[in-house]
Amino acid sequence: MLKKGELVSFRPDIKVLDCTLRDGGLVNNFFFSDEFVKELYETNIKAGIDYMEFGYKADSEIFDREKFGKWKFCSDDDIREIVGDNDTNLKISVMADVGRTNFKRDITDKADSPVDMIRVATYIHTIPTALEMVEYCNKKGYETTVNIMAISKANDSDLNDALEIIGRSCADTIYLVDSYGSLYPEQMRRLAEKYLEYADKYSKKIGIHAHNNQQLAFANTIETLTMGVSYLDSTVSGMGRGAGNCATELLLGFLKNPKYHITPLLQFIENQIDKMKREGIVWGYDIPYLLTGRMNQHPRDAIQFIADNRSDYANLYRYLYDKDSF
Amino acid sequence: MLKKGELVSFRPDIKVLDCTLRDGGLVNNFFFSDEFVKELYETNIKAGIDYMEFGYKADSEIFDREKFGKWKFCSDDDIREIVGDNDTNLKISVMADVGRTNFKRDITDKADSPVDMIRVATYIHTIPTALEMVEYCNKKGYETTVNIMAISKANDSDLNDALEIIGRSCADTIYLVDSYGSLYPEQMRRLAEKYLEYADKYSKKIGIHAHNNQQLAFANTIETLTMGVSYLDSTVSGMGRGAGNCATELLLGFLKNPKYHITPLLQFIENQIDKMKREGIVWGYDIPYLLTGRMNQHPRDAIQFIADNRSDYANLYRYLYDKDSF
Repeated sequence: MLKKGELVSFRPDIKVLDCTLRDGGLVNNFFFSDEFVKELYETNIKAGIDYMEFGYKADSEIFDREKFGKWKFCSDDDIREIVGDNDTNLKISVMADVGRTNFKRDITDKADSPVDMIRVATYIHTIPTALEMVEYCNKKGYETTVNIMAISKANDSDLNDALEIIGRSCADTIYLVDSYGSLYPEQMRRLAEKYLEYADKYSKKIGIHAHNNQQLAFANTIETLTMGVSYLDSTVSGMGRGAGNCATELLLGFLKNPKYHITPLLQFIENQIDKMKREGIVWGYDIPYLLTGRMNQHPRDAIQFIADNRSDYANLYRYLYDKDSF
Repeated sequence: MLKKGELVSFRPDIKVLDCTLRDGGLVNNFFFSDEFVKELYETNIKAGIDYMEFGYKADSEIFDREKFGKWKFCSDDDIREIVGDNDTNLKISVMADVGRTNFKRDITDKADSPVDMIRVATYIHTIPTALEMVEYCNKKGYETTVNIMAISKANDSDLNDALEIIGRSCADTIYLVDSYGSLYPEQMRRLAEKYLEYADKYSKKIGIHAHNNQQLAFANTIETLTMGVSYLDSTVSGMGRGAGNCATELLLGFLKNPKYHITPLLQFIENQIDKMKREGIVWGYDIPYLLTGRMNQHPRDAIQFIADNRSDYANLYRYLYDKDSF
């Protein structure tokens, strides 16, 4: 097994990317208060976080602006409202989904934008479009990543082809994404090894985005970072779709770089996350998510099951099982 | 790294030990209803679980019987009330703490008891007493284990000595216990490698008992089992002191032996665990436990913090930090 760094040292190449607003926005349709966003921004600066993702760059001709908060669309003006000129060490990213972003209209020159990095989320079969977006954003002056989703459903040779094509592109970072929270550490290490081979060959960096369906988001993140993965997605208290993500407070407890500080995060959790939970916003590990994760399925049936206040887990299991049969 | 078995196969040497009543009893002072215990017993049989631990064999001259439910004391009669002659494949264990068990009075001949296995829990400095208990129980006809607690605070040479002495004893199984939930997979693999060396030398089996303070109980369990650890402690929905344990439903999702069945467990969770949670019994991962785990400390301060309904996590962190300073 590859190994980079030791438990008691730190790697300066590690970057922590807070995607609380983006993945967490899938929980509350991006209806965060300005106070929440502002305090998260200040917290990330104090905690030494490297990137803060504000949300999606979604196309308002596809998504109804009335049904979503502004961070689904992430206009430069809305971001500036929070960060001003962002004269800090915290970089700003947004996510652009293939097929859901009018990038030629909505992504302007980096010189005119507070955004530093555009992350392009794609399925394997839409990679050519993703790369068109990446080339465009790169020319506009942004750092770029390609996040290949749902790889637990992809076959090995398709994934090799995908990594080869992305390797040859101008993307800076390639993300290993466990969309369904279905992968065990052993499998994640094997995938990281593969991604890191292409990273070496083409001088790219590798990132990880994990989901917590089987309580493995943190474990998978630290296991792959130990091998050389360097861009680490996390969210405060794991806030994210369904079972959520690797929690930033767990991750900062592991990282040894003295620039990271956990205390500001603990204060943010007390001030904002606990309040949000009291208001009834729900995410995190639960039996229905374990079941979709275990079955390598999208969490949507689990989300619906929980929204319906059901607890007949055995029926859900049977349903998911039958659905996958053929 | 050692590796035993593959992800798609199963190892017949694996044994799952349900310690819901024993570790979970630390949450509710062992006040389980007979209905709960009976249904758990039936569930374990249907799920293919190998051992069910009923609780502690505590000395009633040390612990007040009025303050604890009967599973703190686990009389043979109380166990028989639930299991009759236990004419099943499910074996029964109890835990005996060094210094808290009057073993010569309370542990009778195996021939007269429904119990199959006695697990002796010990700190490193009480191992001689633990081995006296193990020899006694072995002569009485029981399977035995030695569970060395709090090893994250022990030094390497003491641990080597301990494993050497236990290796030479008649104990059947030695348990790797992460009492404070402070160990990362990388450290657990290193420890498992050490334990397995002694196991090979002395023909012992190795078990694991993990805590979920850093959401690593399941990850640490499957990582060490992949190396050859074969006795796996788990509890339904992770019910156990503080952050709880490796959840049986997660573990059965991973194990491939067709004798294990998750559906009975899902039904038990719906019937009994959800009800218990609605009644206000609380356990499982939470920020205060992350902090004691991260600081390699006993969870008692976190348990008190939560009992006091506090949420000033930053103050708790500072308190734990100062406490450890010298």
